[in-house]
Amino acid sequence: MANRIVECIPNFSEGRRTEVVDAIVSAISSVPGIFLLRRESDVDHNRSVVTFAGSPEAVLDAAVAGVARAVDLVDLNAHSGQHPRMGAADVVPFVPIEGVTMADCVALAREAAGRIWSELGVPVYLYEEAAVVPEHRNLADLRRGQFERIRDTVATDPLRAPDVGDRLVHPTAGITAVGARKALVAYNIQLGTGDAAIARRIARAVRYSSGGLRYVKALGFELKSKGVVQVSMNLVDYERTPIHVVFEMVRREAERYGVSVVGSELIGLVPQEALLQSAAWYLRIHDFDSQRVLENRLLSAMAEEIDEDEPEEPDDS
Amino acid sequence: MANRIVECIPNFSEGRRTEVVDAIVSAISSVPGIFLLRRESDVDHNRSVVTFAGSPEAVLDAAVAGVARAVDLVDLNAHSGQHPRMGAADVVPFVPIEGVTMADCVALAREAAGRIWSELGVPVYLYEEAAVVPEHRNLADLRRGQFERIRDTVATDPLRAPDVGDRLVHPTAGITAVGARKALVAYNIQLGTGDAAIARRIARAVRYSSGGLRYVKALGFELKSKGVVQVSMNLVDYERTPIHVVFEMVRREAERYGVSVVGSELIGLVPQEALLQSAAWYLRIHDFDSQRVLENRLLSAMAEEIDEDEPEEPDDS
Repeated sequence: MANRIVECIPNFSEGRRTEVVDAIVSAISSVPGIFLLRRESDVDHNRSVVTFAGSPEAVLDAAVAGVARAVDLVDLNAHSGQHPRMGAADVVPFVPIEGVTMADCVALAREAAGRIWSELGVPVYLYEEAAVVPEHRNLADLRRGQFERIRDTVATDPLRAPDVGDRLVHPTAGITAVGARKALVAYNIQLGTGDAAIARRIARAVRYSSGGLRYVKALGFELKSKGVVQVSMNLVDYERTPIHVVFEMVRREAERYGVSVVGSELIGLVPQEALLQSAAWYLRIHDFDSQRVLENRLLSAMAEEIDEDEPEEPDDS
Repeated sequence: MANRIVECIPNFSEGRRTEVVDAIVSAISSVPGIFLLRRESDVDHNRSVVTFAGSPEAVLDAAVAGVARAVDLVDLNAHSGQHPRMGAADVVPFVPIEGVTMADCVALAREAAGRIWSELGVPVYLYEEAAVVPEHRNLADLRRGQFERIRDTVATDPLRAPDVGDRLVHPTAGITAVGARKALVAYNIQLGTGDAAIARRIARAVRYSSGGLRYVKALGFELKSKGVVQVSMNLVDYERTPIHVVFEMVRREAERYGVSVVGSELIGLVPQEALLQSAAWYLRIHDFDSQRVLENRLLSAMAEEIDEDEPEEPDDS
């Protein structure tokens, strides 16, 4: 792995016209030094998520290039979908992965915001760690009323004022939220019942906003096409509220209704450490260190090329 | 990660004289392209384990260099320790990690065996996947009676005949077992009791040799210095007999005696996949794919990029 790596996971308000998503992805991945990790489009949401990584400099250029293509090709006045949206490029979060700090990603987000306004004429909200106004930290608050409502109130409502750019929205591309945050784990748990009310009750029990775990956002709903109900969650700080703690709490809450957990799924990419910590917890391994993992140790040895003395436990083959 | 990587974990019959172990480790790590991953010495066993990795060619040279230093510096006639041993370099296993097959490691083991005999005059048993005689597959069988017994019977007992070299042992360096195998997981589970008999009974229940799980070797014993008893295991095929299956079986067996599992520990390095599969099992994640792990996806994307950048071999006739 290279030395300084930032991940960027922009969400674009287009999930149906493949050629438009192709053009956006191509603008991103053609920046030298960019590694495209995933692309996912959802037709119902009419939204696409692109995941890429690289050096901070490359990621900045690629993010701006992707936003520029979206501004060219997406008209929010003609857009509809289930997911709330405010811009052609809707949200652009930067995540520190290796050799960079959160402060570096905050700086990157603010630099990207400046360029999106000055080069593309799209005003920007700065959110999460990059926020300059506390009321703009939370994406859910920013999104309230979506594009149409923001367009109509941005000039008059002081809480709607962009953090970068004039007090208006771009006529077709709206407004974009640019932020910095930790890697999050998107995690859904399926329940052995068709009753969505139980999923909603469990979501209320585990999520922070209604008294649950500090770093969990949760919704309960029914997936009609799959015939299951699920608790759909974002774990926004998996180091402090680990996956296994969330799983066990959902399991216990479901049990109270006589319902079992039939499975779970990760959405997108998950940091290795999140799963290693869960394995160590269930297996009761004390003082687990991710350098115990062969591949990690090998990468460290390659990166350092330093011979370390580690006299410890005996082993034999 | 580079393209072709083999791991080698030689065990040497010296765990007390640091300068001797230093010399062996130095002979290994001074081979260009070798990454030293761990070194562990045990005074009671009077034995050291060195873990390193690199390309097949580099690993072959480093293994032979390490064995050569051990042959120079260790005299088995003057060696004692708790662990059974037959050679100055006792066992030399090669493990495929990336871009190499088990067949490659078998070939590597046999090439190493040839060099250890022709260059150093030490005869060799080929074991595990590299075995040419079925009776030599299992290390425990080869070790029976140790150096002294092998020395006295190698010329007369047909089952003792080396696979490479004459029917004698090196006068000071004995005989070396060279093999190829999958990565194994060395895993110990601590029980909430001081009764070693319970640990031994549980070991008998879970290990293959007495009717338990197919790919588990297990012993139960007391760690006097730590005041605990433990079930000490080698999981020799963690893909087919995963860690969580072993943990749950030990836990259930312990419960039958009213004893709890108080913790567990990994010894040495463990392949990432072994822990990811356990996390996925406990969290009930169906169809888990290790490419869901951000770091793995990033490494794959980087490797693909390198492949794409590789210029075609010039075609000249």
